[in-house]
Amino acid sequence: MHFAAVLPLQSGASIRDYSLSYEIYGRLKADKSNAVLICHALNASHHVAGVYAGQEKSEGWWDNMIGPGKAIDTDKFFVVGVNNLGSCFGSTGPMNINPDSGRVYGADFPVVTVEDWVNAQARLLDVLGVESLAAVMGGSLGGMQALSWTLQYPERVRHAVVVASAPNLTAENIAFNEVARRAIVTDPDFHAGHFYGHGVIPKRGLRIARMIGHITYLSDDVMNEKFGRQLRATVSLAGEATRVGDYLYSTQEIEFQIESYLRHQGDKFAEYFDANTYLLITRALDYFDPARAYGGDLSRALASATCKFLLVSFTTDWRFAPKRSREIVKALLDNRRDVSYAEIDAPHGHDAFLLDDPRYMGVIGSYFDNIAKELGMKR
Amino acid sequence: MHFAAVLPLQSGASIRDYSLSYEIYGRLKADKSNAVLICHALNASHHVAGVYAGQEKSEGWWDNMIGPGKAIDTDKFFVVGVNNLGSCFGSTGPMNINPDSGRVYGADFPVVTVEDWVNAQARLLDVLGVESLAAVMGGSLGGMQALSWTLQYPERVRHAVVVASAPNLTAENIAFNEVARRAIVTDPDFHAGHFYGHGVIPKRGLRIARMIGHITYLSDDVMNEKFGRQLRATVSLAGEATRVGDYLYSTQEIEFQIESYLRHQGDKFAEYFDANTYLLITRALDYFDPARAYGGDLSRALASATCKFLLVSFTTDWRFAPKRSREIVKALLDNRRDVSYAEIDAPHGHDAFLLDDPRYMGVIGSYFDNIAKELGMKR
Repeated sequence: MHFAAVLPLQSGASIRDYSLSYEIYGRLKADKSNAVLICHALNASHHVAGVYAGQEKSEGWWDNMIGPGKAIDTDKFFVVGVNNLGSCFGSTGPMNINPDSGRVYGADFPVVTVEDWVNAQARLLDVLGVESLAAVMGGSLGGMQALSWTLQYPERVRHAVVVASAPNLTAENIAFNEVARRAIVTDPDFHAGHFYGHGVIPKRGLRIARMIGHITYLSDDVMNEKFGRQLRATVSLAGEATRVGDYLYSTQEIEFQIESYLRHQGDKFAEYFDANTYLLITRALDYFDPARAYGGDLSRALASATCKFLLVSFTTDWRFAPKRSREIVKALLDNRRDVSYAEIDAPHGHDAFLLDDPRYMGVIGSYFDNIAKELGMKR
Repeated sequence: MHFAAVLPLQSGASIRDYSLSYEIYGRLKADKSNAVLICHALNASHHVAGVYAGQEKSEGWWDNMIGPGKAIDTDKFFVVGVNNLGSCFGSTGPMNINPDSGRVYGADFPVVTVEDWVNAQARLLDVLGVESLAAVMGGSLGGMQALSWTLQYPERVRHAVVVASAPNLTAENIAFNEVARRAIVTDPDFHAGHFYGHGVIPKRGLRIARMIGHITYLSDDVMNEKFGRQLRATVSLAGEATRVGDYLYSTQEIEFQIESYLRHQGDKFAEYFDANTYLLITRALDYFDPARAYGGDLSRALASATCKFLLVSFTTDWRFAPKRSREIVKALLDNRRDVSYAEIDAPHGHDAFLLDDPRYMGVIGSYFDNIAKELGMKR
């Protein structure tokens, strides 16, 4: 969807002539009451559900959650997935042409915030004829967008489902983002963000960024269970290091399975993710802080939210720990809002929000069943 | 101290014509009963206590702990600090000449393990005339060396003090080490470990490595308390980004205090630490696993230790969490060893083992007072 009109941004800058990639699933009822907006996190897109024809392994990133007969039943709900501004999966981002300069944006792409994304999503819904959302939902950074919807457009949201999220980043969260950004920015192939013109990609930095990210997505427990101190099964190709006992005694060859896993994740990511997008999206995470305008008082900040809420967290998530979700729950209860909260005992850390877990799916499914009931749909 | 004789290494390789830098404090009693060996962690040296004449801010890294009248009282004990092989603070390491090739070792420096360091330390003590240690002590990686002493030379150790340590690294610990190593190794200035000849230093990689390290040394709580979401106090020099509200809305400029702190730590570190040493020392950490030869049974692995033990951990240390120390305590108790254990409630994370804390210093002081009593010293 192309937007010619200028979108003013929180920074004071603006963007015009931009496009948003989006997907829709299910049918919008005649009374337009059954729309659900899904907001994505760092490394995801508008492709939230389904499989592209002829493309194996092209499942949407929440395909386990969204589809006919699933927890968010597309036989009942009209689901919208949208790729955010500045991302690299189809919507206008740093690798596109800046209409003001005629050159690729690169590092000049304006800094976008969660609030900006929500404004852009609202405009898309305007065009789609969706005035009011049955629900807005997201996990992690997507949960921040869902929360922000309830503050920016309280009259347009009836339910917000905020999964594995937080009211802002802690110093440690920011620290991990910053190390990842430094790895990208100091990669000589970054060329101050204008690497597209040099025919190179700062893959070294992207790999490091992704490896750091992955460590924070998993729990210590699941890492120990999946990898522990297992040595890599295969023998090194080079033959430079001699196996003594089982150790290679090498500082650079892959010795442990966890190293192999992380390097593989880093390599994959560097093949498709845009470096400038990584900077933009981690910065949007850093900046999100609705309580900031209220001297840090989250209860006051959330006073303008009027919808009903479901908050979900996972016990082993140390990136956005349950206590962060509980801060949101408390602030909403301080405002006497209708809040449900589920703390799911799952071993998978932050990643759990993307994974199949019967209790998790059950909680989401029941919540959406109730929304369907509210809308007068039969089960 | 120079050693001409070949030191066989665990890997099967060996090293000859090497030197160890060391410092001694206090006096060795005529009966040679009062020697204490201090083992260092990643970023430290033989300079454990005292101040160099005319050099301000040259306090030893455990100067708060060791000295006349301190917890480890050098009026009573003869304390030895030694820089490990492969380190970059005076002992033979990657930046020295390989006697076999006549060229700088660089990446060819042999992989050394905790066990190798202990063997090298034992040789140094031989030369110093120290047959038996009143105590061997270390924190973090230093604690691993202290533990290994009790297994490699049980007859030479009367007490082992193991602080903020672990019987081996978890998958997550290894993962953080691996990301740091990848940052160094993929820095184009690394030149496969032979950067000395190119007149460059892989500072970008070292900075990232140190930033990652620092995040894991601090607790989430202390980071929030010290930095929280505070913005950097000073305004940017460049003036390229415009302040709107308080945010700069920039992906690359320093926005938060925690970013400023981490970048500063990275910059400082890259000025003095050797990249090859970083690889070697993190690998020694990865490899340490005394239970490995016993099918993972730590109790059987520690059966050969005969000395008395003090274990200390810190509640907010998530790098080497208290439960890791408790694993050692349990394995020693399984062998009916004499073990004291203190879990210190301190907010500073892993860093706590280097900091002043009255309870921590009290525990160490009392323990060494008792050792002094055992040795028949008056209080």
